[in-house]
Amino acid sequence: MSVRRSSNTVSSARVRGLTHVDPSEVSLQTALDALADPVRRTIVRELAAHRDWAKACGTFDLPVGKATRSHHFAVLRDAGLVEQRDEGPRRLNRLRRAEFDRAFPGLLKLVVSEGITPNSTG
Amino acid sequence: MSVRRSSNTVSSARVRGLTHVDPSEVSLQTALDALADPVRRTIVRELAAHRDWAKACGTFDLPVGKATRSHHFAVLRDAGLVEQRDEGPRRLNRLRRAEFDRAFPGLLKLVVSEGITPNSTG
Repeated sequence: MSVRRSSNTVSSARVRGLTHVDPSEVSLQTALDALADPVRRTIVRELAAHRDWAKACGTFDLPVGKATRSHHFAVLRDAGLVEQRDEGPRRLNRLRRAEFDRAFPGLLKLVVSEGITPNSTG
Repeated sequence: MSVRRSSNTVSSARVRGLTHVDPSEVSLQTALDALADPVRRTIVRELAAHRDWAKACGTFDLPVGKATRSHHFAVLRDAGLVEQRDEGPRRLNRLRRAEFDRAFPGLLKLVVSEGITPNSTG
């Protein structure tokens, strides 16, 4: 247990507040809980349709308020699905596709193809 | 929309009460909701470890009461995961593995291998 102190920290509170979990550390329960929410699946599908770091949080068309939106992104980070970084005023996102696929083969594909395959109409 | 009537139905009320949904008719939302519950994943894993129709409902070691148990089986039927039939006093079960795999490739494998693969410890 070592505590590291820095006298001239340059990272903002927003950056310091961003915790990421590697998909290899995520339980199936956490992964399923994260993806069982339709708004979070929308975020994942949107990210899959764009280049890494191309989408800022504010650019997603979601039927929820700002606090709920932040919560959804935090859940996605905790499930190893999304990586975030701040660039000026924007919080950019990346879908951790390869890593998540390695941990949960096939799961992300089901989510990304939802609305395209016949099964996702119900 | 055709209604079929039978004048000499032999099925019991319990059998008549059993509705099944084909996995091809199940939405990803319904599938994820069904599998996001740890008790239901335990049932699925138990079924995967036995022959079709070998397990009666009462033989599952589950930390829930009888009514909750019945509810979990109903959710699994509605998600196209389990088929049931009554044989005397016993309600027997079959995991609809092939059909569900066709509808949601990879998903069942993640559930069945939970507790075996490194990712399911968290």
